[in-house]
Amino acid sequence: MPKVSEAHLAARRQQILDAAQRRFLRNGFHATSMQDVLAEAGMSAGAVYRYFRGKDEIIAAIAARYSGEMIGTLTEAIDDPHLSLVEVMHRAAGLVEANAGPDGSLRLAVQVWAEALRDEAVARIARKVLNNLRASFVQLAKRAVSTGELPADTDTAGTGATLFALVVGYAVQRVVTGAPDLRTYRRGLRALLTR
Amino acid sequence: MPKVSEAHLAARRQQILDAAQRRFLRNGFHATSMQDVLAEAGMSAGAVYRYFRGKDEIIAAIAARYSGEMIGTLTEAIDDPHLSLVEVMHRAAGLVEANAGPDGSLRLAVQVWAEALRDEAVARIARKVLNNLRASFVQLAKRAVSTGELPADTDTAGTGATLFALVVGYAVQRVVTGAPDLRTYRRGLRALLTR
Repeated sequence: MPKVSEAHLAARRQQILDAAQRRFLRNGFHATSMQDVLAEAGMSAGAVYRYFRGKDEIIAAIAARYSGEMIGTLTEAIDDPHLSLVEVMHRAAGLVEANAGPDGSLRLAVQVWAEALRDEAVARIARKVLNNLRASFVQLAKRAVSTGELPADTDTAGTGATLFALVVGYAVQRVVTGAPDLRTYRRGLRALLTR
Repeated sequence: MPKVSEAHLAARRQQILDAAQRRFLRNGFHATSMQDVLAEAGMSAGAVYRYFRGKDEIIAAIAARYSGEMIGTLTEAIDDPHLSLVEVMHRAAGLVEANAGPDGSLRLAVQVWAEALRDEAVARIARKVLNNLRASFVQLAKRAVSTGELPADTDTAGTGATLFALVVGYAVQRVVTGAPDLRTYRRGLRALLTR
């Protein structure tokens, strides 16, 4: 397949994802139909279905994109020997802040969690994304043990889950209540994670 | 008003709240109408509207009940000088675990957060509940400073938010992914919060 065509396919795919995200954010994931996504993207049914079989595949693609961003940030930070545990967590909190606005992905995440409680296809997507994210924080906990920032006998599975909770719990607070701001939250992370 | 009548009113009120919670959990908060709540409670429209003017008042009452339970547990634990910071957080995590099941309040909480992103009346309720809960964790952070478990220069607003995040983030993980179990998460809390 020629290069230009691949680029075209990728651009169309992104166009659909952007349209779907706008609609999901405006009307809610549950209340949005594939017809609504088509209308928002300004594309015909056949064109959209060439890329995605349904809403579940679209939400999976959107979730993979944003969780990939968080996992990429973590992996990069974990590989940087100059960053301490608290500095890596500060970066993760910064990524939450960057996605907490009205058009940000975190509002979509909260909707997907709610939908996952009643739709098994969405639940599978949400579980996979959260489990992958938690696995990255378990890696971070292991690194903190190897650098001596956490004791050698640390339960890294449990500690990874708490580090992940510090990100998820910040996201919920920021998106639903608007508080705390990033500077305040980072000071809290420093108090908790610096020994 | 005679005592028996007050007890009767309270029992009827609770009957409506239980019916509403069942319906919200089964069909979702957004998709449930007051008519559905009436049907589930087996009561007439007039009877229900005597107690609650609408879905928002019902969800506010349910949220107040469960957040009151968490705040009560925290306040009691904070007042007990024998409990360390990590022991108080272990209790809070235990309360999450107790409410993480299919009929538990946390599934409802996730739905309310999602609805809060598109409905300002629900948003006001959710903000109030989360802000009250966070205030309790700020009190816990202040106590940890006074006992020397956290340094004197700790930012208690930020640290309270991180302690609250450890509870909210555990709730999301448990409800959506089923993991981690309480014992694992408590080991993670111990690793993070013990100096």
